[in-house]
Amino acid sequence: MSSILKGIAASNGIAIAKAYRLVEPDLNFEKKSVENAEEEVARFQNAISTSKSELEAIRDKAREDLGEDKAQIFEAHLLVLSDPELLTPIEDKVKTESVNAEFALKETADMFVNMFESMDNEYMKERAADIRDVTKRVLSHLLGVQIANPSMVTEEVIVIAEDLTPSDTAQLNRQFVKGFTTDIGGRTSHSAIMARSMEIPAVVGTKSITSSIENGDVVIVDGLNGEVHINPTPEVIEKYKKEHARYEEQKAKWAKLVNEPTVSKDGQHVELAANIGTPKDLEGVRNNGGEGVGLYRTEFLYMGRDELPTEEEQYEAYKAVLEGMEGKPVVVRTLDIGGDKELPYLNLPKEMNPFLGYRAIRLCLDEQDIFRTQLRALLKASPYGNLKIMFPMISNLQEFREAKAILEEEKKALQENGIDVADKIEVGIMVEIPSTAVMADVFAKEVDFFSIGTNDLIQYTMAADRMNERVSYLYQPYNPAILRLVKMVIDAAHKEGKWAGMCGEMAGDEIAVPILLGLGLDEFSMSATSILRARSQIHRLNKSDMKKLAEEVLQLDTNDEVIKAVEKAVSND
Amino acid sequence: MSSILKGIAASNGIAIAKAYRLVEPDLNFEKKSVENAEEEVARFQNAISTSKSELEAIRDKAREDLGEDKAQIFEAHLLVLSDPELLTPIEDKVKTESVNAEFALKETADMFVNMFESMDNEYMKERAADIRDVTKRVLSHLLGVQIANPSMVTEEVIVIAEDLTPSDTAQLNRQFVKGFTTDIGGRTSHSAIMARSMEIPAVVGTKSITSSIENGDVVIVDGLNGEVHINPTPEVIEKYKKEHARYEEQKAKWAKLVNEPTVSKDGQHVELAANIGTPKDLEGVRNNGGEGVGLYRTEFLYMGRDELPTEEEQYEAYKAVLEGMEGKPVVVRTLDIGGDKELPYLNLPKEMNPFLGYRAIRLCLDEQDIFRTQLRALLKASPYGNLKIMFPMISNLQEFREAKAILEEEKKALQENGIDVADKIEVGIMVEIPSTAVMADVFAKEVDFFSIGTNDLIQYTMAADRMNERVSYLYQPYNPAILRLVKMVIDAAHKEGKWAGMCGEMAGDEIAVPILLGLGLDEFSMSATSILRARSQIHRLNKSDMKKLAEEVLQLDTNDEVIKAVEKAVSND
Repeated sequence: MSSILKGIAASNGIAIAKAYRLVEPDLNFEKKSVENAEEEVARFQNAISTSKSELEAIRDKAREDLGEDKAQIFEAHLLVLSDPELLTPIEDKVKTESVNAEFALKETADMFVNMFESMDNEYMKERAADIRDVTKRVLSHLLGVQIANPSMVTEEVIVIAEDLTPSDTAQLNRQFVKGFTTDIGGRTSHSAIMARSMEIPAVVGTKSITSSIENGDVVIVDGLNGEVHINPTPEVIEKYKKEHARYEEQKAKWAKLVNEPTVSKDGQHVELAANIGTPKDLEGVRNNGGEGVGLYRTEFLYMGRDELPTEEEQYEAYKAVLEGMEGKPVVVRTLDIGGDKELPYLNLPKEMNPFLGYRAIRLCLDEQDIFRTQLRALLKASPYGNLKIMFPMISNLQEFREAKAILEEEKKALQENGIDVADKIEVGIMVEIPSTAVMADVFAKEVDFFSIGTNDLIQYTMAADRMNERVSYLYQPYNPAILRLVKMVIDAAHKEGKWAGMCGEMAGDEIAVPILLGLGLDEFSMSATSILRARSQIHRLNKSDMKKLAEEVLQLDTNDEVIKAVEKAVSND
Repeated sequence: MSSILKGIAASNGIAIAKAYRLVEPDLNFEKKSVENAEEEVARFQNAISTSKSELEAIRDKAREDLGEDKAQIFEAHLLVLSDPELLTPIEDKVKTESVNAEFALKETADMFVNMFESMDNEYMKERAADIRDVTKRVLSHLLGVQIANPSMVTEEVIVIAEDLTPSDTAQLNRQFVKGFTTDIGGRTSHSAIMARSMEIPAVVGTKSITSSIENGDVVIVDGLNGEVHINPTPEVIEKYKKEHARYEEQKAKWAKLVNEPTVSKDGQHVELAANIGTPKDLEGVRNNGGEGVGLYRTEFLYMGRDELPTEEEQYEAYKAVLEGMEGKPVVVRTLDIGGDKELPYLNLPKEMNPFLGYRAIRLCLDEQDIFRTQLRALLKASPYGNLKIMFPMISNLQEFREAKAILEEEKKALQENGIDVADKIEVGIMVEIPSTAVMADVFAKEVDFFSIGTNDLIQYTMAADRMNERVSYLYQPYNPAILRLVKMVIDAAHKEGKWAGMCGEMAGDEIAVPILLGLGLDEFSMSATSILRARSQIHRLNKSDMKKLAEEVLQLDTNDEVIKAVEKAVSND
């Protein structure tokens, strides 16, 4: 039977393919007595051998696709499965206590895991992790449930998940993933940002997609309207194929704007830049006509690994981006870790409210080794392009002064050692904390530029976690409070002859763009895939009309009133 | 050996008494083989009988001090300790598996707890909770560690805790608690607020007090300087006894101001009101010359119980406060639950960032039964005094309009049923979310008053969790960003002929009071114990000078610069 689920349109486009569930299986079981222990042991051995063949296949595939390095992980898992020190006690337990294999496995494995983890030794801790992973796999076979093996996907799929973390997406074979849909998240969650950077359609926040779809169901992800169709009728499939063609046609029109400047109808030029996570994203920036990189999120360099990246590794990445942009501006944000982005190897303490916690510049000013390494790598790479450095989560002037002083120290030290550093490197800040927006006039005297980070600015200004579905209705980008803060920042910058950009999701949003143009925003940085649509929109707008619109909406009462006013103004256009 | 720990001075005064640790004991143990199972069973039976006598004593004490109702809980625990269905399998397990009693107890109890919890039945869930509590107690005796039994305290003590939750404090016999000191928390944590409302000295955020003090150590809590002395020398005790006398003398001077009006040197009157949690706090308000209640935190009515308070219970409490204040203004804040204040019986979901989550008005507009019950109780009580109703956590105008519409509906319904309701009840909002401060001009047209909740306003504006020690340095009340937002709110109120108050900790702060007086704040609501000191301070200040000071500090760069400017201005005074 076909059905439809509504969610949040997180990345444009339409995809039709079979469902692939990337979901933690339910591995709960009960302790049971077994009458025939020999049979139970045989069932256990069977699960072991199935797990082995599965792991061998995964290992071979990983070796082929991802290299020997990743394949080693599965080799280690295979060793665990042949270890009599683990297997014998499990079989003994089944026999002597007449318990089910699930229970014997879990009890024995847990004992080893606890033992290894309690040893203060990195190697032993990894062994504990291996045993835990392997136990899950064997349990899944005993229980007859399926563990997702994303690296084994060999056909086009729509990924179905509760949520997608950066490490989940790292395991996916991007070639075969045609779309995402998730239970939780909003337009600014990682899965949404990831989908836009992969240029595949996504619908997030459906609340119940993982409980509505089985592996192999046919799924349409409608990333334009935020709908997911499950096992649709042939008529619906036909309709969506047409819709898909129309969308491709529209994209083809936009594609003609790739080398055009971004100028309003009445001649105002603004810069449309891209948000990127890795040097690999540059291809998308070029294909979509980005006039610069407005936000390089360096934290991806630090993620999905076991230790900090070296200065050399960072230098190579920064140099690649600067060279790749061929002299166009590249705004690099220094490490923004903490909050919802964890680095397990830093052993940061659990916090009750991580979004209001120890993160970004707060951590960098405290753990100066990490910060200085990054700054040195940036300074060394600076001669290869047009580098601008930006500090995240600045909440008061002292933080900016400290961060800048550290940068100056490192610059001086490099120069004294005869290392080449670019003459002029602009140093700016993210404006994503309300205090900083309110104090923008004071900051503008000392910074070279502002980039407004709306994702965080909105959640702090409205005191509503954008990841929390219960309050996500309060994540109101067009609330006049937000627009007033944005205006304060732009006006403060211009008064001191500085520029103001925006690198949150809002910068590419069709309702926000007319207001931001009217408020005088200089640089709009967005997902590369939004650039051409935004350029096409700005071509059709008069800056002078948008200025009036902006003045009007700042005096309105609510988010909804602003949306209506913009829709009215733009349709009159 | 004597030692000193530094912390945050959270409540003024000096206390000297023996330490009482209110700390969860370490009940970890290892599974062990025992050689003599009979001996082990005897050890177990011994722990059971010790637990029984302990529980009997606690039950008798509870019956005496707290009533039959509370005593019943311990009666239920005693029944568990006599239940052969629980005890026999434990003893059997020790005998057949030759394991230690701790292990046999925990395994067996866990099995029952899981079984009872998995039944979808309130009664069975309570049984599970009883077994869990009793298991802890028996384990503590097996392990020879002590469980705190706060209701059994019969001598003067200083309470030593990691942190104090509202439910911890509900169990304390206030008569004997002379001071608090905790590992975590800041000036605005619950333990600090509680200490001020109990008028006992407290030092919080010492980081390591629970690992530095044993039961029975002699402790001095110096709530003036934020120091804790452990087993001090006789000289130190002598010094502190003198200090204590000096402080009492100062308080005696202030006490003369109890019936004085609060007027600045140049004749400006402001209102000094008190923050209260229960009708019991009114005595403190009267003793300290409160001119009103600026914040009645109604959530305490909902806490430390198993179900929502009835309309009748609420009505009685509100009526008691209104009558007790004899026509002076009483600002009642509607339910502000969620965030760090949980109500277990509401079964709210765990949130990643509770401070940015589903709480206060967000929950009340969603769970309207709870909200309407409270509003009816307030309306019915309104004829007994000067009631003002205040909604917490308002972030946008729609929320205020919805909340007010619900209030009007309930009012109309009561009046139609011939129930007496006061003619004029002012309806206002807490301003504690940045968006609302920024939009104060728009709100001022619709609300009757503002009360600035600085505890939350500061943490959202600076994006720093005030409970998180790693970022608590960013909780900057004097950051010019905060002062600018406060000014926006006061100016917006006055422009529409409304009044503006403040009910955060900042309202009673010696550095903030001069600025707030200068900004034109109409009402200062604080811990009752701060009122007389603030009145004495305001008597010495010229409003016109403070106006100039306020204008000056709004243009400063940082929190520290503001502190210096105020200290200079006030010392010139």
